[in-house]
Amino acid sequence: MHGDRLLLGPGPSVPYPEALEALTRPVLGHLDPDYLGVISEIGDRLRAVFRTANALTLPVSGTGSAGMEACLVSLLEPGATIIVGVNGYFGERLCEVACRGGAEVVRVEAPWGSPLDPADLLAAQRANPQAALLAVVAAETSTGVRNDVAPLGPELAGTDTLLLVDAVTALGGTPLEVDEWQIDACYSATQKCLGAPPGLAPVTLSPRAVERMRARRTPIQSFYLDLGLLQDYYLASPPTYHHTASSTLAYSLHAGLGRLLAEGLENVWERHARIGAMLQDALPGLGFELIAPERARLPQLTAATLPEGLDEAVLRKRLLTEYGIEVGGGLGAFAGRAWRIGLMGHAATERSVVTLLGAVRQLLG
Amino acid sequence: MHGDRLLLGPGPSVPYPEALEALTRPVLGHLDPDYLGVISEIGDRLRAVFRTANALTLPVSGTGSAGMEACLVSLLEPGATIIVGVNGYFGERLCEVACRGGAEVVRVEAPWGSPLDPADLLAAQRANPQAALLAVVAAETSTGVRNDVAPLGPELAGTDTLLLVDAVTALGGTPLEVDEWQIDACYSATQKCLGAPPGLAPVTLSPRAVERMRARRTPIQSFYLDLGLLQDYYLASPPTYHHTASSTLAYSLHAGLGRLLAEGLENVWERHARIGAMLQDALPGLGFELIAPERARLPQLTAATLPEGLDEAVLRKRLLTEYGIEVGGGLGAFAGRAWRIGLMGHAATERSVVTLLGAVRQLLG
Repeated sequence: MHGDRLLLGPGPSVPYPEALEALTRPVLGHLDPDYLGVISEIGDRLRAVFRTANALTLPVSGTGSAGMEACLVSLLEPGATIIVGVNGYFGERLCEVACRGGAEVVRVEAPWGSPLDPADLLAAQRANPQAALLAVVAAETSTGVRNDVAPLGPELAGTDTLLLVDAVTALGGTPLEVDEWQIDACYSATQKCLGAPPGLAPVTLSPRAVERMRARRTPIQSFYLDLGLLQDYYLASPPTYHHTASSTLAYSLHAGLGRLLAEGLENVWERHARIGAMLQDALPGLGFELIAPERARLPQLTAATLPEGLDEAVLRKRLLTEYGIEVGGGLGAFAGRAWRIGLMGHAATERSVVTLLGAVRQLLG
Repeated sequence: MHGDRLLLGPGPSVPYPEALEALTRPVLGHLDPDYLGVISEIGDRLRAVFRTANALTLPVSGTGSAGMEACLVSLLEPGATIIVGVNGYFGERLCEVACRGGAEVVRVEAPWGSPLDPADLLAAQRANPQAALLAVVAAETSTGVRNDVAPLGPELAGTDTLLLVDAVTALGGTPLEVDEWQIDACYSATQKCLGAPPGLAPVTLSPRAVERMRARRTPIQSFYLDLGLLQDYYLASPPTYHHTASSTLAYSLHAGLGRLLAEGLENVWERHARIGAMLQDALPGLGFELIAPERARLPQLTAATLPEGLDEAVLRKRLLTEYGIEVGGGLGAFAGRAWRIGLMGHAATERSVVTLLGAVRQLLG
C-alpha cells in the first residue's frame, strides 16, 4: 500500500505529472547520444530558469546540499575567506561546509525570521576585500524569509569577491536573475519549485567563476563534486567519463522544466505569489502568526507560529495520518511552535490551499 | 520518441521491471513514517546482499563514485596513509580521491588486465603498518578482472589498517562476504548487478570502522558525504536532518533488492556465473580475445579485444544504432581495441547473450 501525500512541507513538493511519467522511460547509458541530447536540453532549460547565458549550467548528481558543496569546494581554496550571510539553518550550513573545506568564514548575521541587510554584507566585503566569495541564501527554507540578493552583484563586480547564491527554494518560485544580478555561482534542487523528484542539484557558474576555478593552485578537495570535472563530463565533446549519471532523474528534471517553461517562468512566479498570498491572508484568521515580515516574505514557503496552547507536533502528525497532508515543523528558535508550509511547483495551487485550510479548520475544531 | 536499449555495457544495466515500476510511486517526504519504513527495509536488504550484520548500512545519495568518496573521506584524516591496489581505472580513481583528501597513497600495482596479488598488498601493509586503510577494487569494471579480496581481512585483523573494498560491479554479481571476509568498509552502486537505475550508492561500515570514524580528530572534509551524519540521518531515532533524500530512488532500490532476494543471492551469483560463461565461451569463436586470465575473470563484466582489423568504435556505434544494444569501449591500454560487455542484474540472461551474439555475427558478416 502506497502513501499518497499532499506534500506541503519545505520539500519535496508533489512533482508535475509529466515529471513522474518521465521516470519510467527506459534507462539509457550516460554516453548514449539520446541521453546526451537530453542533457543538452536540460542545460538550455536550466539557463532559461536561472536567466543566464552561462555555459557551465548542469545538474550535479546529488541533492541541493551537494550543489552547495560543489560550488563551495570548487571555488574556495584552503585558507580562502568567505563572507556568509546567516539568518537561518541554510546560512549556517554554508558556514559549516565552507569550514570543512578549510576556508575562513566571516559571518554576517540577522536574527532568524528577519532578512539580511545587503549593506551589512557589502560592509563585510569592504572590511575583507580578500574574500573569495560572498554567499547568501536567497530563500531561507528554515524561516520563509527572502533575502534581497539583487543589490549585491553590481557592488561586487569590481572586487575579487564572487557572489554565490543559494537558490534551492527560490529557483522557479520567486524572481531570480543570475545574469542581471551578476551572480557568479548559483545552485538549486529539483524537488522544490522546479516540480521534479529529489536527486539532482542544478548549478550554474559565470565565466568569471569558471576562470577562478580553472586558475586555482590547489586541487578541488572533492572528486565527486568537482565542477571542473563535471564541466568536462557534461559539456565537452566527447565527454570525459566522470560518474554514471542517472538518466532516470535527468528525464524527470527535463520534463518538469518543460512543463514549467510551457507555463512561462513569469507566469509561474506570479502563480507562486498569488497562491502564497492566499495562504498567508488566511492563516492569521486561524490564529497563526507569520514569522517573516511582509517585505521579506516568501510566497513559496510560509513559516508561521501556531495558536497559543496547541502542540504543533501532535497536530502535524494528525494532519499527516488523518488527512495525508505533509507540512514541516519549525527549526531552530521556532522548533516546537511553528510550521513550515510549502506551496511549491505543482503544489502551488488553489486546491492545495483550500485543502490545507479545510483540514486545519477541522483539526482546530 | 524514447530509445529502448539493451544495456550490455559496464553499467547502467537494464533494471528489473519491479525497480522501474517502483519509480512511479507517489513521492514521500524524507521524514515520512512510510518512507522511514522503506529506508529501514532497504537497510535490511542491503545487509542481506552485503552479507553483513553491520548497523551502518545505508544508501548514499549519489552514484558509486559518491560511495567511494564517502568511505575515503570519512575514514581518512589528512596525512593518513592508504595502500591502494591499482590494476585498472577504478584503482586509479581510489588514489585520486584519497590524494584530494590529503592522504599519502602507497600504490600496489599489477598490469591492467591482470589481478592484484594479495601477498603484494599484505607486504605493503607490513612495510606501512601505520596505514589507516588498504583499498582494493573487487571487480575492476575497466578490465573485467576479479581481484581476490577474501585473504586480506583476516591478515589485517590484528593491525591498525582497515580493509576497504570497492564492490560497485561485484555486489550482487559475484560472491562477496563482508563479515566473513572481515571487510571494514564497502561501497557499491545500484545500476549494475543490483538491477536498479543509477543514483544511489549502498555503503556499509564495520563497527571497527565506525569507531575509527567517530574517534577522528579532524572533521570529515565533506558534509554531503559524511557517513557519521548519514548514520544520524538514516539510523537514529528521531533522524537528524541532513539532506532531502529521494524517495523515488529509494523505492526503486528497495524493489530491485526485493526481486534479487526473492530469487536468492546464491542463485543470482550462479546465474551471473552461468550467463557470463556462456558469453565467454562464445567470444573466441568470433575472433575476440578475453583480456582477463581465466582464474580472475568476472562473469558480469567481460573485456575482450576485437578481431584484428576491425574498428571497435564504428562497430560499437552500429550495434547501438542498428540493434539498440549498448556495450562499452575499452579503457586505458585497451582503448580503441576492446569492448566491455556487462551481463548484470536483469540483463544477465540467456536472451541477452543470444541477442548480442546474433547481432555481432551479423555485423561481422
